[in-house]
Amino acid sequence: MSQSEIPTVLVGKKPLMNYVFACLTTLQGGAKQLMIKARGRAISRAVDVVQILQRRFYKDLKVADIKLGTQELMGPNNQPVSVSTIEILLRRES
Amino acid sequence: MSQSEIPTVLVGKKPLMNYVFACLTTLQGGAKQLMIKARGRAISRAVDVVQILQRRFYKDLKVADIKLGTQELMGPNNQPVSVSTIEILLRRES
Repeated sequence: MSQSEIPTVLVGKKPLMNYVFACLTTLQGGAKQLMIKARGRAISRAVDVVQILQRRFYKDLKVADIKLGTQELMGPNNQPVSVSTIEILLRRES
Repeated sequence: MSQSEIPTVLVGKKPLMNYVFACLTTLQGGAKQLMIKARGRAISRAVDVVQILQRRFYKDLKVADIKLGTQELMGPNNQPVSVSTIEILLRRES
């Protein structure tokens, strides 16, 4: 499966469990891989989502890859703002 | 060098640049590897520190490994609280 076909959950400012349920729905649909992306302060929440998935729901879910990056956004005064990003690739082993 | 000898910067709630400077001091002392650790909401800040180090100061600084985890802490009411953790291992290539 190419990178573009991997189902992706973008973690933002909603409550943590919203994203956990989005991931669970995807995995219960049979997906063996799942990409979790976040930027800025939501990065911590993305890690929380991974930990809950692994500890409570899918013991065979492993972190296959993690990429850190930076994205340039336009700030409130039209000034460019750099925001950190994370992409966590999860894979079911069984 | 074993894991225990790698200089470590623990990112917490202080201003971002405090941690950047702590890392720069370690790298300017000749360290080829550096571990950055954080937990909870500071995880986002740890990623910011890595991005600033790589983009502004050390172009040859690569992410060698990232580990996610969970730590059990005692909460305010003596109830156990799970906190996500990140450990980012950086390595200078040159």
